[in-house]
Amino acid sequence: MVKRVAVILSGCGVYDGTEIHEASAVLVHLSRAGAKVQMFAPDADQMHVVNHCEGKPTEEKRNILQESARIARGDVTDLAKLDVSAFDAAIIPGGFGVAKNLCDWAVKNKDCTVLPHLEKSIKAFHKAGKPLGMCCISPVLAAKILPGCELTVGQDKECDKWPFAQTAGAVKQMGCKHVNKDVEEAHVDVKNKLVTTCAFMCNAPIHKVFDGVGAMVKETLKLA
Amino acid sequence: MVKRVAVILSGCGVYDGTEIHEASAVLVHLSRAGAKVQMFAPDADQMHVVNHCEGKPTEEKRNILQESARIARGDVTDLAKLDVSAFDAAIIPGGFGVAKNLCDWAVKNKDCTVLPHLEKSIKAFHKAGKPLGMCCISPVLAAKILPGCELTVGQDKECDKWPFAQTAGAVKQMGCKHVNKDVEEAHVDVKNKLVTTCAFMCNAPIHKVFDGVGAMVKETLKLA
Repeated sequence: MVKRVAVILSGCGVYDGTEIHEASAVLVHLSRAGAKVQMFAPDADQMHVVNHCEGKPTEEKRNILQESARIARGDVTDLAKLDVSAFDAAIIPGGFGVAKNLCDWAVKNKDCTVLPHLEKSIKAFHKAGKPLGMCCISPVLAAKILPGCELTVGQDKECDKWPFAQTAGAVKQMGCKHVNKDVEEAHVDVKNKLVTTCAFMCNAPIHKVFDGVGAMVKETLKLA
Repeated sequence: MVKRVAVILSGCGVYDGTEIHEASAVLVHLSRAGAKVQMFAPDADQMHVVNHCEGKPTEEKRNILQESARIARGDVTDLAKLDVSAFDAAIIPGGFGVAKNLCDWAVKNKDCTVLPHLEKSIKAFHKAGKPLGMCCISPVLAAKILPGCELTVGQDKECDKWPFAQTAGAVKQMGCKHVNKDVEEAHVDVKNKLVTTCAFMCNAPIHKVFDGVGAMVKETLKLA
């Protein structure tokens, strides 16, 4: 049976959208496994547009769906049309777009709220026993929506290799169990069918991020 | 010895910039091989900005270097500063950005001209016996600058799998030898140290494009 996977994007570029290499790795690994993929993104303005040379917001406006279409080579659907019954699993790559466009974690941290249709969809996948795969910062969506779940965002002690380790502390405060994992590993919360990997939360060579995303995709498909 | 590779970008998105998945595959394979990478792009306006949902140009202006920084996670240098003596090889991923922002192939086809600094750099790599890796549409740069070279853009007979096969005819008219290859293969022109693969010139699953780019990167590094 071919596994049908919804991949949810949030723009195109690490500082204001989906992290490009995480999304590409997800698509390569799903393709190699023979999965059938449909990509989704919200048809709404991005929180902001960041000049990726300077890391600073500009005055521009960009639409999340249109920018996600750069990753999807044009083939992306409005997230409002995501019908959970048509899929066996969902995967959400990381990037600041998750924390800015899919929820407001970038502003409110653990007090964030998630886009209503996305929250509804994640709850529906979970209730139907369909696995969710997440990487980098996107596990905070699970932390918010599935209280008490187990996940990894990498390591919980900050250092050069783990510059965003404080995220682990935040998800613990939200009542989740954080599991320390290295960049090439994924953590499987069997009970919640939630599979997570740290990706670029780790300051690692890109092929290790690619392999970690591969582990996440593999475990997600196993549970589907 | 660590191989130092210049990767030349032309924006971010298949229809007006660098093809995202080709660039990501280049970076993953170079990282796995232990190469040291520096990315470059022209600091200039894109030819145009395409709404990737509709495939149509918009009224927006975007800067090639800033958009390339989305792929480079901020770490990209003005192409004008590329010093060939500091590198062992150069790789140019495809996407319409090559045909619109690095040369004007999209408008003038085989009568195109190449950005002067890029033309000078490609000639300098070639003259120094340093290999050039190219994929998708970027081999037309070699066809223009290295007359008589051997290259592949996939197959020369148009069909559903090979929608852009007329490009092979165009490079033949330019005096090059076109070699038919499948998506997972790379062609090596040993004399010119030019390595090419068709990538998304083929209508193929993304993991096969990833593997073809891997073959191109491997052969390029072998010659470096």
